[in-house]
Amino acid sequence: MTLDAFMIDAQSVHAETKAMLTLLHDLYPICRSITGDGVRATLARIGREIPLEVHEVPTGTQVFDWEIPEEWNIRDAYIADSSGRRLIDFRQHNLHVMGYSVAVNARMSIEDLRPHLHSDTQRPDAIPYRTSYWRRDWAFCLSDRQLQSIGPGPFDVMIDSTLSPGSLTYAECLIRGASSQEILISTHVCHPSLANDNCSGMAVAARLAALIAGANPRLTYRFLFAPGTIGAITWLARNEQRLDRIRAGLVIGLLGDSGPLTYKRSRRGDSEIDRIAADAIHTLDPQSARIVPFSPYGYDERQFCAPGINLPVGRLTRSANDEYPEYHSSGDNLGIVSGESMLQSLTALTKICCMIDGNERFLNLHPKGEPRLGKHGLFRDLGGRGPADLEQAVLWMLSQSDGSHGIADIAAASSLDADLLRQAATRLQRAGLIRNLD
Amino acid sequence: MTLDAFMIDAQSVHAETKAMLTLLHDLYPICRSITGDGVRATLARIGREIPLEVHEVPTGTQVFDWEIPEEWNIRDAYIADSSGRRLIDFRQHNLHVMGYSVAVNARMSIEDLRPHLHSDTQRPDAIPYRTSYWRRDWAFCLSDRQLQSIGPGPFDVMIDSTLSPGSLTYAECLIRGASSQEILISTHVCHPSLANDNCSGMAVAARLAALIAGANPRLTYRFLFAPGTIGAITWLARNEQRLDRIRAGLVIGLLGDSGPLTYKRSRRGDSEIDRIAADAIHTLDPQSARIVPFSPYGYDERQFCAPGINLPVGRLTRSANDEYPEYHSSGDNLGIVSGESMLQSLTALTKICCMIDGNERFLNLHPKGEPRLGKHGLFRDLGGRGPADLEQAVLWMLSQSDGSHGIADIAAASSLDADLLRQAATRLQRAGLIRNLD
Amino acid sequence: MTLDAFMIDAQSVHAETKAMLTLLHDLYPICRSITGDGVRATLARIGREIPLEVHEVPTGTQVFDWEIPEEWNIRDAYIADSSGRRLIDFRQHNLHVMGYSVAVNARMSIEDLRPHLHSDTQRPDAIPYRTSYWRRDWAFCLSDRQLQSIGPGPFDVMIDSTLSPGSLTYAECLIRGASSQEILISTHVCHPSLANDNCSGMAVAARLAALIAGANPRLTYRFLFAPGTIGAITWLARNEQRLDRIRAGLVIGLLGDSGPLTYKRSRRGDSEIDRIAADAIHTLDPQSARIVPFSPYGYDERQFCAPGINLPVGRLTRSANDEYPEYHSSGDNLGIVSGESMLQSLTALTKICCMIDGNERFLNLHPKGEPRLGKHGLFRDLGGRGPADLEQAVLWMLSQSDGSHGIADIAAASSLDADLLRQAATRLQRAGLIRNLD
Repeated sequence: MTLDAFMIDAQSVHAETKAMLTLLHDLYPICRSITGDGVRATLARIGREIPLEVHEVPTGTQVFDWEIPEEWNIRDAYIADSSGRRLIDFRQHNLHVMGYSVAVNARMSIEDLRPHLHSDTQRPDAIPYRTSYWRRDWAFCLSDRQLQSIGPGPFDVMIDSTLSPGSLTYAECLIRGASSQEILISTHVCHPSLANDNCSGMAVAARLAALIAGANPRLTYRFLFAPGTIGAITWLARNEQRLDRIRAGLVIGLLGDSGPLTYKRSRRGDSEIDRIAADAIHTLDPQSARIVPFSPYGYDERQFCAPGINLPVGRLTRSANDEYPEYHSSGDNLGIVSGESMLQSLTALTKICCMIDGNERFLNLHPKGEPRLGKHGLFRDLGGRGPADLEQAVLWMLSQSDGSHGIADIAAASSLDADLLRQAATRLQRAGLIRNLD
Repeated sequence: MTLDAFMIDAQSVHAETKAMLTLLHDLYPICRSITGDGVRATLARIGREIPLEVHEVPTGTQVFDWEIPEEWNIRDAYIADSSGRRLIDFRQHNLHVMGYSVAVNARMSIEDLRPHLHSDTQRPDAIPYRTSYWRRDWAFCLSDRQLQSIGPGPFDVMIDSTLSPGSLTYAECLIRGASSQEILISTHVCHPSLANDNCSGMAVAARLAALIAGANPRLTYRFLFAPGTIGAITWLARNEQRLDRIRAGLVIGLLGDSGPLTYKRSRRGDSEIDRIAADAIHTLDPQSARIVPFSPYGYDERQFCAPGINLPVGRLTRSANDEYPEYHSSGDNLGIVSGESMLQSLTALTKICCMIDGNERFLNLHPKGEPRLGKHGLFRDLGGRGPADLEQAVLWMLSQSDGSHGIADIAAASSLDADLLRQAATRLQRAGLIRNLD
Repeated sequence: MTLDAFMIDAQSVHAETKAMLTLLHDLYPICRSITGDGVRATLARIGREIPLEVHEVPTGTQVFDWEIPEEWNIRDAYIADSSGRRLIDFRQHNLHVMGYSVAVNARMSIEDLRPHLHSDTQRPDAIPYRTSYWRRDWAFCLSDRQLQSIGPGPFDVMIDSTLSPGSLTYAECLIRGASSQEILISTHVCHPSLANDNCSGMAVAARLAALIAGANPRLTYRFLFAPGTIGAITWLARNEQRLDRIRAGLVIGLLGDSGPLTYKRSRRGDSEIDRIAADAIHTLDPQSARIVPFSPYGYDERQFCAPGINLPVGRLTRSANDEYPEYHSSGDNLGIVSGESMLQSLTALTKICCMIDGNERFLNLHPKGEPRLGKHGLFRDLGGRGPADLEQAVLWMLSQSDGSHGIADIAAASSLDADLLRQAATRLQRAGLIRNLD
């Protein structure tokens, strides 16, 4: 493989953008939560792009300090006036119902209903996104403007939901490479109709997986589509014995808004993925790309970088958390996500994956002085002139192949092109002068 | 305890300043040396502020490469003219007699007397401070102006002193905290009437000990009042087996002049006390505070940081050594020491002690992924909004509690307030999610 | 010895410069290669300056991945026109014959001759330097201008050379010091009439060895005069078991042109020689001296810093490799080498050797607190005044003598003069307070 194996070629740019936008539009309307049929429908749609292995973990399963909750499903919900007119209607926007709301069917005065209504006075036109996974409760979310004008009631209040034993659903897409070392790429699938957070992340992840699957990678790639927090914890608990094969990872999400590419370092702060991802996005967008330190708040890097796990897993987003005004509200709709942003995000990820896939490590098998390269066909016979570029690359590969430097590291140290170093490595391998360590 | 437990509250500022000035005035006239009744009188006066355990170590005791010298006491001394008029009089200023001068009683010509007279031509109006601890000798110190006008003699020369087997005296004030880890704070008690060097240091040390004793500290504090060099060496030799309980320390002194707060790093250079003390004085006086590297000349940090001891002990002074014109002369009198300077010094020390006392370390007992904080009452049930400050603090405490970071370190990494982190730690401890490591 | 033991004193400057220029002129005309009588004649001339042990390693000897090649000698060579006039004449310039050309004696047309003619179109007036050590071939080198005007022939082509079993020749100059730790200084002796590359390096190396031999050094110095690449590899293969006594080293060469002093770091990058050489040349020429990172192309640092050897060996040159226009051509003649440049290079090397020879390490034998220095005659008896410079030096030596700091390191940390520290060390050694670790 070559170092641009995963890169989107010029004629595919349009098709990739279109594929991501189509996925975004298909995923946006689905009402997802941390469990339930919304997640299954989401994974089914993603499964049309890439092969997925879907896992179901039963309610009640212990995962570290947590337990798989009951499964939540919802069919309909509304607040209607006495004439039967739906004032708040789940079919209009799935954010209208607080995630994990239990069923209710009652006539209520505004006084009784009021504690079950959430609005956001800071963003009076937006429906806020609210959940109550761990305390049985029900509520409606609505814009503050709606709330101000809702009147005294009485109201017919109905939530047709079930919260009952079932399972938590997540999926993996495994792309096997020549090496069993794994790159873990994880994105969250638990948010309902929020376009940037995280239909954009799912769309980009799916296309990234498709590109890598088509390119015969050197390393093994494991894509994880799981609900936030509980999904990552579940996956860690079920894979604890196999974490040592994870060479690096990325939590990705919120990749379609107009904010700049943002890499958040792993808790380790200086691992291979930290060096490579920072380099990649800085190269791609020197003006705007941001590198931020680790902090224990955010997305599933919280779990992968917990002190007792501490994997070399960073995070790529654009705007994150509370950084854009439409965050966690109905304002996070298809209008704030662009194909250009998703394409740049996908490009950044392909670049990072190419770099880490290509950061192969070798061992110099003749480390005492230089081997006689001419004998092995690796150096010109005519002396007196300086070495050609490939000869320089051969010398650098021999000098640095002590197990602690990969191709990307040697490229950085030597200012030589990584592809040229790879050519040199291939020829040195054929000559029996170095061997692969990965 | 809270992180400002030792801090001087607003209504105590005046009283503390007054207490230090009173101590300064009481200590100034006493004729101290490295042994003798002057030291005992000094410790008796300090013992009226704080409880002291006084130690007497007999002459001849071997302490590392040193031996406790004979004890020196002096009652009177003068140089008189033939009419009996005292030209140089110990009762006028105790600096007039070189420390450890042996007894003499003789009529002498100026030729015989001259080798026994010390003046300082650079500071013609000041009596210089001189000692001869390790060679039996006697001398008078006088201003160069006096020396120029002393005349041919004959002189009646008298020193009524004794140098004979006795003991070296030092005192400790031990303030026990919940933890047996100790903070060592040491100041020198061997200089006679020099106000800044070191009546100021003794006064500040005594009040610091009083404040900490009244505040129920977490760590144990050991204040050492000992003669310079030989006192520190004696203490080290007698406590060598117990040095491992010293978590950090400070040599303090010369804390009343108008120079800026000055922290000298320990020989290690980057220990906890080095980070905290630098941070504390920089915060207190960003314009002027100085941080200087370790050097093997100075005060008793020389002993605590000797290569075979190498404790994490730094030093806090204002002007040090030769940095002020009145240094080691009669010019170092009450006029160059101010209550304001001593108060700022005391404030800096309380701040440092608060920070190190509060730099508690914990161990996350559920380090694999986050524990489910809601279950433990540490996270809101309603999802969708960002974490409150205390929730952020909980996450930071969990993320960094791997044994290598204390509260002060986590505060620096997170930009969160140390008190908030402490609250989070208390709640995490109650929930059984972290445990104290100190 | 003192720290300037190897330094050129003022009255020797002229003599040293003259000695180097004389050597340069004597060495320049000799036709050297990686084997043969040219190397022997070169070593014989150097052997008139310093004692050399000459080694002969037979053709066919295996040295790591290499084999000692056949020995090459040449007596005459020319291309003549049909009238017998020599158009290209080895006796005019030994660069006219490609190194290791096999014998030829034939009448040839220009078509047959053309593949055996090398010129350099970039430098049309210069004869390029070419070799073919590892493929049996013959060729002439000539200026491109000559080549353009050479005509159609026929030509009488003659090379009177032999390539046959013999040996590779290198020499060592060993200067034994009190310590068996070695400083390795290596320069290449394989280039024919190229003045800067490397008659200048051989001349400087010879005089440096002479200066050190005359100064009774503390460490042992091993000068290696060997053909490039194969010579260094041969030496390494024959000395592999003894490499652990090499404390530091320098590859030197190209020391007479007008380029700035240039230190190339060892592969380790931060070893003792790296710190000292950078410091030395920066002090000598703060404006122009260059410090460059390690790279695996260059001179014999390639071998000494191979990953399986990895000695702390840096490189000192002025312009290196392709950095000057006359590089590897007949333009590299006596006109581009100056006595001033060689003198500055020699001065830099004496300075580096003085610093490393003087970077003695000691162990404080009384590391618990300060020893009582007065008792050992190392501190004044009269107290109250600050320490004299020597007393400061004594304190620094005691404080830093823990095995990890040498005199040069302590000088850098303390800003004290290295000679003063050495005086202090001598007195501390006599007093039994420290002992030498080297």
